[in-house]
Amino acid sequence: MENKNITIKEVAQKAGVSMSTVSKAFRNYADISHETRQHILKVAEEIGYKPDNVSIYKANVNKNYRLALLVEDYDAENYMIYEMLIAFKTAASTYGYETIILTTSSDMQKGHDLSNFIQEKQVDGAFIIGLKMTDDYYNQLENINYPCVLYDVPINNDKVGCVGVDNIKGSLMAVEHLIKNGHKNIAFINGHKSAVVSYERLDGYYLAFNRNNLPLRKELIIHSDFSYEGGKLAAEELIKENKDITAIFCASDLMAVGAIEALSGLGYSVPKDVSVIGFDDINLCQYVSPKLTTIRQDREKIGITAANLLLSIIAGQYFGRIVIEPEFILRESTISLLK
Amino acid sequence: MENKNITIKEVAQKAGVSMSTVSKAFRNYADISHETRQHILKVAEEIGYKPDNVSIYKANVNKNYRLALLVEDYDAENYMIYEMLIAFKTAASTYGYETIILTTSSDMQKGHDLSNFIQEKQVDGAFIIGLKMTDDYYNQLENINYPCVLYDVPINNDKVGCVGVDNIKGSLMAVEHLIKNGHKNIAFINGHKSAVVSYERLDGYYLAFNRNNLPLRKELIIHSDFSYEGGKLAAEELIKENKDITAIFCASDLMAVGAIEALSGLGYSVPKDVSVIGFDDINLCQYVSPKLTTIRQDREKIGITAANLLLSIIAGQYFGRIVIEPEFILRESTISLLK
Repeated sequence: MENKNITIKEVAQKAGVSMSTVSKAFRNYADISHETRQHILKVAEEIGYKPDNVSIYKANVNKNYRLALLVEDYDAENYMIYEMLIAFKTAASTYGYETIILTTSSDMQKGHDLSNFIQEKQVDGAFIIGLKMTDDYYNQLENINYPCVLYDVPINNDKVGCVGVDNIKGSLMAVEHLIKNGHKNIAFINGHKSAVVSYERLDGYYLAFNRNNLPLRKELIIHSDFSYEGGKLAAEELIKENKDITAIFCASDLMAVGAIEALSGLGYSVPKDVSVIGFDDINLCQYVSPKLTTIRQDREKIGITAANLLLSIIAGQYFGRIVIEPEFILRESTISLLK
Repeated sequence: MENKNITIKEVAQKAGVSMSTVSKAFRNYADISHETRQHILKVAEEIGYKPDNVSIYKANVNKNYRLALLVEDYDAENYMIYEMLIAFKTAASTYGYETIILTTSSDMQKGHDLSNFIQEKQVDGAFIIGLKMTDDYYNQLENINYPCVLYDVPINNDKVGCVGVDNIKGSLMAVEHLIKNGHKNIAFINGHKSAVVSYERLDGYYLAFNRNNLPLRKELIIHSDFSYEGGKLAAEELIKENKDITAIFCASDLMAVGAIEALSGLGYSVPKDVSVIGFDDINLCQYVSPKLTTIRQDREKIGITAANLLLSIIAGQYFGRIVIEPEFILRESTISLLK
């Protein structure tokens, strides 16, 4: 009697051991006793558990059983990294891997070769979050020859995979929501040009207008920097020059909150006068007033996917780029002009 | 010519190597070349750098040069852990230590001995964040016999140190600010009783009334759970029963934001009718309306202090409990009743 939904966590709970011990039992890892292994395999059989990625277990001989999570900078404003980190680490644990944290600022030196750097840390691979096109190491990403997964940077080869939300689709969902609700004069506050996602989100904005046969007004598109202050300044500039704007789509929630602040300061009510929609779905969205309509990036899914993708690459499989479905979250900052 | 302010980071930059390489040079670590070591020591001498905790370098022989950061649960709402984590990891790097992440849910099993667990991970010590008095492992903290530093749990012995903000003082600062501005009917929404900090913050509330010869009204004290929803419910209950409340002190910013929402919903304006003050100074404080007056816990300082304390314990020194100064942050959610 097999049950596909049985997870390694349930085996661990039932057997009274940790998830990594279950993982070790399936890999015939040396540091658990014969009795423990037999006990775990018996429990797994009883409740119908099968490891869901057998190839990962098989191929990983002579490995360090260590992964690195490499973050670019100490960015206190980035609420999303911790969620990805914990999900990545938890998924890695189920395969008996430990996770070390590396930061470019404290661990690397200028001119350091990224592949060598990761290899020297005696890890089997790394999940890299937050490198921008303007960073020193960005140009090296194309030539990495050590297993890595990149967040939101669409480079992939035999050793490098990429995971991120479908930015074009997310952007399209946001703008089509506005169009379907009667908005035509829709401004777009995009992120900075040094982020790949900015190009993808711009494509989504274009597509929404094209698909709905609406004329594009390029003067309503402005580049900012993903920050609250940036969003605030951009919204002020937009609304002063274009009084007919009825909606603003922002490429980050922080910029959307800044835009709402700017609009309120100029006497516009959100959403009555202007609808505002963000991107990311950080927790902040629920606590501001009005609560922010946005496009959700599922950080837990990104972290888990990154770990699985990285382990697959380490096991010699090739998967390339994995895109995560964005999710439309309707709250209070957008209204319909129809009726 | 010595300059006390020269940091390991400046030596690293000047020498064109990473901070951990500088650290290794000072420790005579084997995996850097003689030339690199000589180069670094020369640069350090030139710019007047002296390692500021020589005993840490000396005593750490036969070590793994690995530390663990153990977090209790995946708590997406806890914006503070990532900041502490990065600061801890960066400080550990300057001594050539790497940091692995452990979580109780994915790495431990019920009944696991905490000391053994940490020791088995082949780390030299652990920084433990987020264990509550209701957790399985909490009772084991007193008996830990492996180097550990606890965040916000005041247990210390030869092997265990503690770091956290001065909660009594923080609470006192918040309530005295209100008292000095003419408030007398000051409610307190505290955290749950399973957190040590709740007792300390309550002491601070008491002290503020005692020191200022104001009568305590115990019906204005309510226990909640640190969450937005908890703060919202608590504020509704308080204000319905006690219409004379002019200020509410909340033991977390999230509860304060929930309290503001509840007050607005009942027709009270913040701060005009009721002043509200939070605790923590999470980023959210700047983005809500009104911007939240609060007591800041400096996460970077906590993380750096934890790393230094842990390495000192590993080096056989005893420091006990280190309290970090809280900081009063005045924003828009409190007003004076005087004039």
